[in-house]
Amino acid sequence: MIIVYTTFPDWESAEKVVKTLLKERLIACANLREHRAFYWWEGKIEEDKEVGAILKTREDLWEELKERIKELHPYDVPAIIRIDVDDVNEDYLKWLIEETKK
Amino acid sequence: MIIVYTTFPDWESAEKVVKTLLKERLIACANLREHRAFYWWEGKIEEDKEVGAILKTREDLWEELKERIKELHPYDVPAIIRIDVDDVNEDYLKWLIEETKK
Amino acid sequence: MIIVYTTFPDWESAEKVVKTLLKERLIACANLREHRAFYWWEGKIEEDKEVGAILKTREDLWEELKERIKELHPYDVPAIIRIDVDDVNEDYLKWLIEETKK
Repeated sequence: MIIVYTTFPDWESAEKVVKTLLKERLIACANLREHRAFYWWEGKIEEDKEVGAILKTREDLWEELKERIKELHPYDVPAIIRIDVDDVNEDYLKWLIEETKK
Repeated sequence: MIIVYTTFPDWESAEKVVKTLLKERLIACANLREHRAFYWWEGKIEEDKEVGAILKTREDLWEELKERIKELHPYDVPAIIRIDVDDVNEDYLKWLIEETKK
Repeated sequence: MIIVYTTFPDWESAEKVVKTLLKERLIACANLREHRAFYWWEGKIEEDKEVGAILKTREDLWEELKERIKELHPYDVPAIIRIDVDDVNEDYLKWLIEETKK
């Protein structure tokens, strides 16, 4: 199991992408919440409100998920960050495997 | 040191579980915030407001913590996700070791 | 690439520290959002509103970043928690490397 962290400019785009990833069974679950982002962009420190998403899926779906997020994402350079899960309760893992594409 | 990520249906259950885990010294600290969850459940894509919790504890408490969360958690299939910390400042680690059960 | 998680007592200190770290090119990006913290402190379970920060940077900047956060942070014992990223899309990594100090 892996967690993938990505960020969107607003709720509309976040919901749209996340629901598409769910429909395509590339993820089993997404947790979304607002944050304020501070970052370097074209020589200036920018600040934006964003929606951050924690996506939960199987490790072997990573490459396909990453490519699909790139296609769907409104940013030119989205952050698509993979963090491997070191352990998880068995019944949650079972659910996650069942709900994602074979 | 490890981080454990779990999600609750509301603030009441989140606070209750987290305070019990603190009292039993199974964790040293918890950070809680709301999010919107989108996920597959019984053939449908569901959406719920949830409270997500980042729990901080010692690696050797993982099995005991996982079992205790299962007992206390209102969900049939909670997410109890372990992420290993790759490094941490020494004084925080010292505090975390002191505040958790021996 | 690594993620560093740290928490601040309020927005003012969070913004100040994060903007300093950006100016010094010790990080490329920070995501900030409020949470409620529950933790042991001097024999009591305390609760506080905090601002949590996810910082994104290069792995080889970790030691310098950790020491700088310690200097700037208002807490006596801040949490400076490093999580290694297991993979990331190439164009984001390229951007992150370009925006951080050499």
